[in-house]
Amino acid sequence: MKRALPVTREDNFPEWYQAVVDQADLAETSPVRGCMIIKPWGWGIWELVQASLDADIKRTGHENCYFPLFIPMSFIAQEASHVEGFAKEMAVVTHHRLKAVDGKLVVDPSSELEEPLVVRPTSETIIGDAFRRWVSSYRDLPILINQWANVVRWEMRTRMFLRTTEFLWQEGHTAHATREDALEETLKMLEVYRALAEDVLAMPVVVGEKPENERFPGADATYSIEAMMQDGKALQAGTSHYLGTNFAQAQTIRFQSAAGDLEYCHTTSWGVSTRLIGGVIMTHGDDDGLRLPPRIAPRQIVIVPMLREKPEDSEILAYCEKLKVELDGLSAFGQPLRAHLDKKPARSANKRWDWVRRGAPILLEVGPRDMASGHVTMIRRDKLRDGDKIVSQGISREDFLAKAPELLAEIQSNLYAEAKARLDGNIRSDLKDFDAIAAYFGAAAEDDEAKSGFKGWVRAPWARPTGAELQQVETRLKAFKLTLRNVPVGQGGAGGTCVFTGRPAVEEILIARAY
Amino acid sequence: MKRALPVTREDNFPEWYQAVVDQADLAETSPVRGCMIIKPWGWGIWELVQASLDADIKRTGHENCYFPLFIPMSFIAQEASHVEGFAKEMAVVTHHRLKAVDGKLVVDPSSELEEPLVVRPTSETIIGDAFRRWVSSYRDLPILINQWANVVRWEMRTRMFLRTTEFLWQEGHTAHATREDALEETLKMLEVYRALAEDVLAMPVVVGEKPENERFPGADATYSIEAMMQDGKALQAGTSHYLGTNFAQAQTIRFQSAAGDLEYCHTTSWGVSTRLIGGVIMTHGDDDGLRLPPRIAPRQIVIVPMLREKPEDSEILAYCEKLKVELDGLSAFGQPLRAHLDKKPARSANKRWDWVRRGAPILLEVGPRDMASGHVTMIRRDKLRDGDKIVSQGISREDFLAKAPELLAEIQSNLYAEAKARLDGNIRSDLKDFDAIAAYFGAAAEDDEAKSGFKGWVRAPWARPTGAELQQVETRLKAFKLTLRNVPVGQGGAGGTCVFTGRPAVEEILIARAY
Repeated sequence: MKRALPVTREDNFPEWYQAVVDQADLAETSPVRGCMIIKPWGWGIWELVQASLDADIKRTGHENCYFPLFIPMSFIAQEASHVEGFAKEMAVVTHHRLKAVDGKLVVDPSSELEEPLVVRPTSETIIGDAFRRWVSSYRDLPILINQWANVVRWEMRTRMFLRTTEFLWQEGHTAHATREDALEETLKMLEVYRALAEDVLAMPVVVGEKPENERFPGADATYSIEAMMQDGKALQAGTSHYLGTNFAQAQTIRFQSAAGDLEYCHTTSWGVSTRLIGGVIMTHGDDDGLRLPPRIAPRQIVIVPMLREKPEDSEILAYCEKLKVELDGLSAFGQPLRAHLDKKPARSANKRWDWVRRGAPILLEVGPRDMASGHVTMIRRDKLRDGDKIVSQGISREDFLAKAPELLAEIQSNLYAEAKARLDGNIRSDLKDFDAIAAYFGAAAEDDEAKSGFKGWVRAPWARPTGAELQQVETRLKAFKLTLRNVPVGQGGAGGTCVFTGRPAVEEILIARAY
Repeated sequence: MKRALPVTREDNFPEWYQAVVDQADLAETSPVRGCMIIKPWGWGIWELVQASLDADIKRTGHENCYFPLFIPMSFIAQEASHVEGFAKEMAVVTHHRLKAVDGKLVVDPSSELEEPLVVRPTSETIIGDAFRRWVSSYRDLPILINQWANVVRWEMRTRMFLRTTEFLWQEGHTAHATREDALEETLKMLEVYRALAEDVLAMPVVVGEKPENERFPGADATYSIEAMMQDGKALQAGTSHYLGTNFAQAQTIRFQSAAGDLEYCHTTSWGVSTRLIGGVIMTHGDDDGLRLPPRIAPRQIVIVPMLREKPEDSEILAYCEKLKVELDGLSAFGQPLRAHLDKKPARSANKRWDWVRRGAPILLEVGPRDMASGHVTMIRRDKLRDGDKIVSQGISREDFLAKAPELLAEIQSNLYAEAKARLDGNIRSDLKDFDAIAAYFGAAAEDDEAKSGFKGWVRAPWARPTGAELQQVETRLKAFKLTLRNVPVGQGGAGGTCVFTGRPAVEEILIARAY
């Protein structure tokens, strides 16, 4: 069965993933270790994700601003658990000059900085420093800000979009007078992320709180959205942290309350990154390439004219041009529809497959016969094949114009429904002890995860162990390459016995392999 | 004469500039040397500049993408003049780990990189490296890309927005088959920048070509837009470079022509940065703070309710709320109008002055009497005072609603006209030799430029000296803190004698003090 990619998901999921990144023209590796070049099609997706989320961030009362790329080394040391969690792999700037020696460029030793600077791995400390200056009275609160920025974490093993040394994200940072306000904020932004993932990326998620061992360094509580990839693994797609007064105490962020007392602020932070694009690929991609939810498709409808270097070519082009203009005049998802006419000098069949691999939601092919009968030939990317056969459908241009926005909405829903069925159908909650879980996920020594076949997630009752006991749980899971994902919100009272401790359970937690 | 700022332009222009940056809430200094924090009001302006320019960049056929923050040191060395010009003050990453030693964080010596990375000062080299991979045939050309990014140049003397160690910009990079195509691109983007400056920022500019000594390192030709600040100095507000085949030869960016020959690409690059915001401040600011052209005002019309903690407050708020909603429903400059109701718990007079300092184009004050008569009291920021008196005008809400978009357009034009008159009125072309120019700009030893009073620019005939002769010119000008700005485009044949060499002139060049 021939597909547009050289490798299928079933054959080798990681290779398939890399093939989609390459062949959908999303990104490529750069000569800089662990950093990638995001190509126009990948960047176009990110711009649409940004636009949607940015509107939500503003709608919920936040303002954008921009903080420095560099953070003085001493800042990182301010919050104890933050040091613990982040003071590891970071890009460190130590000098500020190169010079030529014998015609070769070298770092000028005389330009050493008094204090090294780290390239921000996240900005809590430098933004907290500003909060300290900005806050003096309860009247100054809340402070609700966000920035879109690049951050750097020196990763040893990188994978395009999912884990790169440099990545792009937004990081929200807020300060509040009370725990309640800060927690409300934390959950509000978690809900914004859920809506982004589900309604815009068509990527269903489970919303929940991370266990203690998976918290952000310095947080009192970390919440996440977790999505299920097609290989069954979990992808943490966004996090929202309630930082308590930890950073406020470390950085002296205080305010005078209405009653006149000097109190510490409660702060939050929350972020999503270009990792979301990795999630989209692994949620919607198939063996012919990417399938893009129309809301984040830079080009929603692509028209490919079937040109044959004949006189009628110009007529076909005019027919297509007119169609494109009419489509651009329509509205889809409350915004102008994004149509594209591919006039590149290349073979039509190649163009078709390029757009299939890139995941354009609807492809229209227009040849002389289509034109003569006032038709277009439509290919829906979400229903590309019937068995091996490509499904295309002739439709009059008028009918297509009338239905285009609705078709896009249908594709968006279909992709969501497909992924939602996969998520819902692959969370086992019938495994009642650790041995059963271990047996489900297979041999601990299994190096090649792919060989153990598709595994979903397990939802299991637990007693919420902490400290050393939780570390033990972590170690036991690690032997099976498993991690605790989150405790889904909105649970009823938990029943049963903790699969780790045998004590009465207090809630249910998700266990999965993860990116 | 009391003004809203503690210092006037005439008293001390640099201090006035810093006062506007502070008091208009645009930005503040950060604990990181030479880096600034761009605050929400400043960032909001940048977002509008970005949105407008980004649309133009796309309209002219370019696609956005993203390249790594880091550039291997060896890349910088690839193009000889580029090394010369840039291999100086850059942030150099030499290590990738911190570790705790005796409870203190230090750079881990064992994490030294094999090859140091520089934080991009500009991306010609790393993008050229990709072009080399992307181009093989004439069919692949042109390549037209752009990125929005942060860049770092280790500046010794920094000034907010105008020269900071880290700054934000867009950088366009293109590759073409012929010199003609590349030059056309260079000039096309220069025109995009001119339109941005004049039509969006209301900042008139002179478009021209830089003399040889002011070219971008590695360029065959550099064009610029130059704006006149209120202290008479020039601000280079945007540049567009024709790089010839210099980078293509250094980086082996070649293509097979239609005739089958292997040829080097002709490349271009072009950029504008957050420096534009400094230009807006120094073009439009007055002694009461910033005045924003409506097209880049995050809030174009601000409503300040005159509340007195009385029962009628809620009625006033409802009246204002309704007005805001109606204003938001209008369109200005082809986009939804941006109105804001300032409900902050602060004294109305303080709010008024905050918005005056921030430069909101129109301020509406609404008190009980305004409400009772269905009026608003309007203050136009571009016509704030008559002598010392604040000019406010009662106007019925219906009339205001009917006129609001037109008023904003009028303010945009007024600000442009005012700045255009200043530019046109302060370029002297009557100084026929260097002594006359020197005499105009004043004593060479004058340290405090402010003391020499307002000086504009000089447009003088010159013979386009090059090499050592041009260096001499540069040195002579430097003694008067003067620089060659650009050779304005669209000149007729030049007459007269070169003010530097005494030879027959070939064209006219602008001479000015500059930021």
